[in-house]
Amino acid sequence: MIGIESKLSDNVKRMRPSEIREILTLTENRKVLSLAGGLPGPEVFPKEELAAIASRVIEELGDSALQYSPTLGVMPFREAVVDFVKGKGVKVNDNDRVAVTTGSQEAIYLLAMTLVNPGDGIVVESPTYLAALNVFRYHGAEFIPVPIDENGMRTDLLEDSIKKAKQRGINVKMIYTVATCHNPTGVIMSDDRRKELLEVASKYDLLVIEDDPYSFFVFDDTNFTHLKTMDSEGRVIYLGTFSKILAPGLRLGYMIADRQLTRAVELAKQMVDLHSSTLSQYIALYAIREGVVDKTIEKARKAYKEKRDVMVDALEEYMPEGSHWFKPKGGLFAFIYLPEGVDTADMLPTAIDRGVAYVPGRNFFSDGSGANAMRINFSYLSPDKLRTGIKIIADTAKDYLASKRATSA
Amino acid sequence: MIGIESKLSDNVKRMRPSEIREILTLTENRKVLSLAGGLPGPEVFPKEELAAIASRVIEELGDSALQYSPTLGVMPFREAVVDFVKGKGVKVNDNDRVAVTTGSQEAIYLLAMTLVNPGDGIVVESPTYLAALNVFRYHGAEFIPVPIDENGMRTDLLEDSIKKAKQRGINVKMIYTVATCHNPTGVIMSDDRRKELLEVASKYDLLVIEDDPYSFFVFDDTNFTHLKTMDSEGRVIYLGTFSKILAPGLRLGYMIADRQLTRAVELAKQMVDLHSSTLSQYIALYAIREGVVDKTIEKARKAYKEKRDVMVDALEEYMPEGSHWFKPKGGLFAFIYLPEGVDTADMLPTAIDRGVAYVPGRNFFSDGSGANAMRINFSYLSPDKLRTGIKIIADTAKDYLASKRATSA
Repeated sequence: MIGIESKLSDNVKRMRPSEIREILTLTENRKVLSLAGGLPGPEVFPKEELAAIASRVIEELGDSALQYSPTLGVMPFREAVVDFVKGKGVKVNDNDRVAVTTGSQEAIYLLAMTLVNPGDGIVVESPTYLAALNVFRYHGAEFIPVPIDENGMRTDLLEDSIKKAKQRGINVKMIYTVATCHNPTGVIMSDDRRKELLEVASKYDLLVIEDDPYSFFVFDDTNFTHLKTMDSEGRVIYLGTFSKILAPGLRLGYMIADRQLTRAVELAKQMVDLHSSTLSQYIALYAIREGVVDKTIEKARKAYKEKRDVMVDALEEYMPEGSHWFKPKGGLFAFIYLPEGVDTADMLPTAIDRGVAYVPGRNFFSDGSGANAMRINFSYLSPDKLRTGIKIIADTAKDYLASKRATSA
Repeated sequence: MIGIESKLSDNVKRMRPSEIREILTLTENRKVLSLAGGLPGPEVFPKEELAAIASRVIEELGDSALQYSPTLGVMPFREAVVDFVKGKGVKVNDNDRVAVTTGSQEAIYLLAMTLVNPGDGIVVESPTYLAALNVFRYHGAEFIPVPIDENGMRTDLLEDSIKKAKQRGINVKMIYTVATCHNPTGVIMSDDRRKELLEVASKYDLLVIEDDPYSFFVFDDTNFTHLKTMDSEGRVIYLGTFSKILAPGLRLGYMIADRQLTRAVELAKQMVDLHSSTLSQYIALYAIREGVVDKTIEKARKAYKEKRDVMVDALEEYMPEGSHWFKPKGGLFAFIYLPEGVDTADMLPTAIDRGVAYVPGRNFFSDGSGANAMRINFSYLSPDKLRTGIKIIADTAKDYLASKRATSA
């Protein structure tokens, strides 16, 4: 048999496995409580409604719903997406267009393809969504990490970070932010900071990617305005998804941005996958029209808030002294800093053996920090299992610390 | 508003619109008989069966079918794909793995990503599938075109073409072929030539991509053996799709290849779209199990053979003298050479105004030839409309020729 390895392209050398996907594969056929993925709780899937809608879509519109469709998405669905986000307070400009994508992941990939030249600088929250880091890194981006606190990105440090990057000769091109219900920490950027972020973006002529999968799940009375809505210069690219508000199995995300950019994304998508599932688009269209999406949002928000509270209680009860975290104001995740000395990547195999999985923190930082941190998801498991999972993680961390101390003693 | 154009990456400069997709968009809301796309006839979609299956899948397996799933595909579906292709005479090696993709297009894209370095040489049939050309070109491939005749690629010219490319310093890496029911000509490569192709591939240590969307639609008594089945060295990468044998709207393709390559494709796909629609995969799984795919194949083969015959009759009756084509032995397309002097790209706007669309031939050649050729699809329209469409094309061509002669006189 021939050796494939020598035939692989140089691109492959730049590819890093997604830690989340690898953990999902690792735990696929094992009885492991997974706090690793960003999976919606299956109890919020509107199964009955979607079963009925799916068969109705095929019966009523089969000739279209089963057929090839335009690269940017089927027109009624694209229109429904615009109406839907407008109803959620997202401003859509006359010059904007919608691109339907195969999950939000594809939107990030297509944006990297169409916007990033090797060496271009991208401002990111530190920590930030690891799969975005992977994609931008693959395209040769230089990261400009800006720390966060409980009010989101430290915009007081933003301009200085950009200046320093420019001094190093970096062509700073954009800011990537999960401003609302941040992944992985669950914090929400304050409106003051959003304003400041946009002012800096304007001053340095940067694009802003507002990656917004979670803003439907704000648990407490936190007010916020979408960056897309605040933006009067057309520099915000808005990314949304139906993965958390309907079903990830449909693989439907969308991008709303300036028509010139959307056209470039269309050309890229023609090569990548021609178009996203037509059937999924019609199913989601019916689900929007019939109120199933809004109902799912309500149900999920309630369920996730309850789980968030269970998680926070369990964290407070079980985690070793010296651990800290932000209490998530929304979303699906919490980011836990364990005491110095814990290496969460090193600890993961033991945790999996004991029946629980999480994502090591280092993956969420562009600068290799975060060895003692981990992301845990609270949307997927039942409250009981969530509690059990957190206890196992905490016990594993305590044992890890004890054995470390024993070794160094 | 800011100018996006200056912010686009250099990649965008290498992107060419897919002529097929652009024509589809152009004709979307117009009453045009489209012979341009590669659309299945909607009358062969198993609508009733799929409506029932879709709702059953969600009811019975909703927790999984609506959820995120592994990047290479859900395991029972991947296993069913292997059994399915084995049943169709495709050999699958122990060392092979299946990657489920968002249509066959994504498989081509992921292969280009993982295999092609700028300047690598790819042998292609001349003409060949235009979207593959687009993707490979984007990745910087050099094409080595080999002409075809009614028995497929002229393998007697293959070795010489490769030698010449090597003399020009090109790193010849693979052969891309639609060997069975070739796109755009509908010819089938003879088994002798397949053998010769594999011998040359072995001698020059080339990979072979067997892109095989159409082999289920062989109309006449043509025997053939899949390249994948003839290959004893693990150099054939097999691409299949459910677009033509179930429904393109599901966006489901697959690749079967050596595990090392499949692993590289997995890493690439993690970045591109995480995974393909879970719901689509379960729907296709049920459709395979319940015989719906096989029934659809039979129905489509019969319908397309009838349409092929109608088309050939119409071509013989209407096309201007001096036109020629291969009678398609299978598949969805015919490739028509009009008399010298016709520029089918130049003629297209008139044709669309008169109510018919096709794809200009030049797009199917890597070397810019084929100006007087066009690809027409015969699977989509009803026999009556197909006949009408061909008459309009023929009349338009005749008028085009007459006005040309008048101008040059």
